[in-house]
Amino acid sequence: MTQVKQQEIHLANRPKGMPSKEDFNFVESSVPTPKEHEILVRTLYLSVDPYMRGRMQDAKSYIAPFELNKVIAGGVVAEVVVSRSDAFKQGDVVVGNLSWAEYTVASEREIRKVDPKMAPVSTHLGILGMPGLTAYFGLLDIGKPQEGETVVVSGAAGAVGSAVGQIAKIKGAKVVGIAGSDEKIDYLLNELGFDAAVNYKKDSFQADLKNALPDGVDVYFDNVGGDVSDAVFKHLNRNARVPLCGAISSYNAEGKDSGPRIQSTMIKTSSLMKGFTLGDYAADFSVGATDLGKWLQQGKLKYEETIVEGFENTPEAFLGLFKGTNLGKQLVKVANPEYAKL
Amino acid sequence: MTQVKQQEIHLANRPKGMPSKEDFNFVESSVPTPKEHEILVRTLYLSVDPYMRGRMQDAKSYIAPFELNKVIAGGVVAEVVVSRSDAFKQGDVVVGNLSWAEYTVASEREIRKVDPKMAPVSTHLGILGMPGLTAYFGLLDIGKPQEGETVVVSGAAGAVGSAVGQIAKIKGAKVVGIAGSDEKIDYLLNELGFDAAVNYKKDSFQADLKNALPDGVDVYFDNVGGDVSDAVFKHLNRNARVPLCGAISSYNAEGKDSGPRIQSTMIKTSSLMKGFTLGDYAADFSVGATDLGKWLQQGKLKYEETIVEGFENTPEAFLGLFKGTNLGKQLVKVANPEYAKL
Repeated sequence: MTQVKQQEIHLANRPKGMPSKEDFNFVESSVPTPKEHEILVRTLYLSVDPYMRGRMQDAKSYIAPFELNKVIAGGVVAEVVVSRSDAFKQGDVVVGNLSWAEYTVASEREIRKVDPKMAPVSTHLGILGMPGLTAYFGLLDIGKPQEGETVVVSGAAGAVGSAVGQIAKIKGAKVVGIAGSDEKIDYLLNELGFDAAVNYKKDSFQADLKNALPDGVDVYFDNVGGDVSDAVFKHLNRNARVPLCGAISSYNAEGKDSGPRIQSTMIKTSSLMKGFTLGDYAADFSVGATDLGKWLQQGKLKYEETIVEGFENTPEAFLGLFKGTNLGKQLVKVANPEYAKL
Repeated sequence: MTQVKQQEIHLANRPKGMPSKEDFNFVESSVPTPKEHEILVRTLYLSVDPYMRGRMQDAKSYIAPFELNKVIAGGVVAEVVVSRSDAFKQGDVVVGNLSWAEYTVASEREIRKVDPKMAPVSTHLGILGMPGLTAYFGLLDIGKPQEGETVVVSGAAGAVGSAVGQIAKIKGAKVVGIAGSDEKIDYLLNELGFDAAVNYKKDSFQADLKNALPDGVDVYFDNVGGDVSDAVFKHLNRNARVPLCGAISSYNAEGKDSGPRIQSTMIKTSSLMKGFTLGDYAADFSVGATDLGKWLQQGKLKYEETIVEGFENTPEAFLGLFKGTNLGKQLVKVANPEYAKL
């Protein structure tokens, strides 16, 4: 039997500062053969996410670092090619945290079947997947927006941020988004119905933000950290809540990430700040997924995807996250389905 | 009738940076006469507290600023001299937020009677008063220490910090204190029974702190902010809780209070940080006071007072807070009782 060849992507270096294409290595390997209770899947879409930058460093965190010269892993939607499990059959569409490879063997526990009739399968990497659930739990469990309150979200046009703003609107809050291009501001205001949106790259950012916040900030969902967050902190109301989801502005910082200390502001306002990762809410995933699916079907949640075509363009798609080239969820389309009916 | 004269202390300037004696003005005035439902009291002890530095600035905060050339107010224990209220009689000992003056007229609602037999009356400005309650609510409501966890407290030998550490011990936690002199370290270890204590003024502070924290930090009760807190943040465990009570290191800072941003650390550890002031817990004061009184009588809570004698030395006592000259609660003894039986 001929060994069929495929490509997979390895971590070539632990980058200092901004990563580059040279930090990724395309390696040819044989398509693996599933053992009993295993499933061979073919990647249809893969997800590139800001949090993966942290896994490229060899540092203690909530998730283990990627290993040097080993395959990188992330969110993947795939179709089943060969199943040696009773739980899956050829043509099933599955989602899981799997290798950046054209083909992968997964164990039964690593993947979960999704219904292609419910929504486009790519949504399981976005609005119905990790970013959507991250928005859902961070906003509702930590932010706890009340009707009429003001919710600010940074990285507002990204996969998490756009979901945060819309869920806050569903809960009756006034929503102000912060993003980095006129196109994104237009999207937030005219597609997603945000009450205000501010471009942090403009010289007038501080004044624009102040104008957008006549009633201050009750909830600040922070995806970016850095100067943008420093600006928002000036407007915290009494008993404000700050879910800390990401700090993309610092992920590629080589020196120290320094800025004004926020403790005095938090004391004066009795504000709360809490870091979280989606894993904190593993026990409640089904509750979140049910709500998100319902809102999506009711048309209350919209989403945007920026799709790069071709497995070979995965590093470029990942690097684009730090330049803010994506609107909504950044995906890579790796293959058209051969067995699945989408 | 001769007008009896007395002294009161006015705010003379809004200080920039470290305050000085020149920012306080002693003004002679007549001892006031109580109207119906009012009480003339004579100050026995007055309390100087770090939070009062904030009130010297004309800045938006949780409490209104002191007015220029008006009398300063703070925690006072006093005896009733003339009562025109049915609720108080001459010789009663009362506590309230009253003028820095030798004599004051208070309304019935401004003062509360205390029992001189239960504990020394000065404790109502310390372990049974604002500092004790601040420690109680911040630690138990936000910090939520569990048995066997590690609680770190900065400003550990002060009125709030020493109560925090002892309450944490009562709850079964391991307690590490941070303070600024060998005398204070000795007090924490040998008088209060802290498990470890670290002097932040030593060159070896970072290493000493690390050695004192083999199991990391589950709760960090922060009284000081600044570099000391930056050092503690490096040791936060997963799901750590950080009650923010004070940031005395920054109160006299003229420039920006800047340092490493903590958001990334909080995300990696899913940690929580919350600012608070005692007013947030007004509805629960009696619960806290009951517990504190019980622990004090059971000998589970010890306290220390640093008492400066003489109303004229009040500014000096206040300024000493920022030099760390106090061990435990800093008080000024203004007068011996004339009517009260202590």
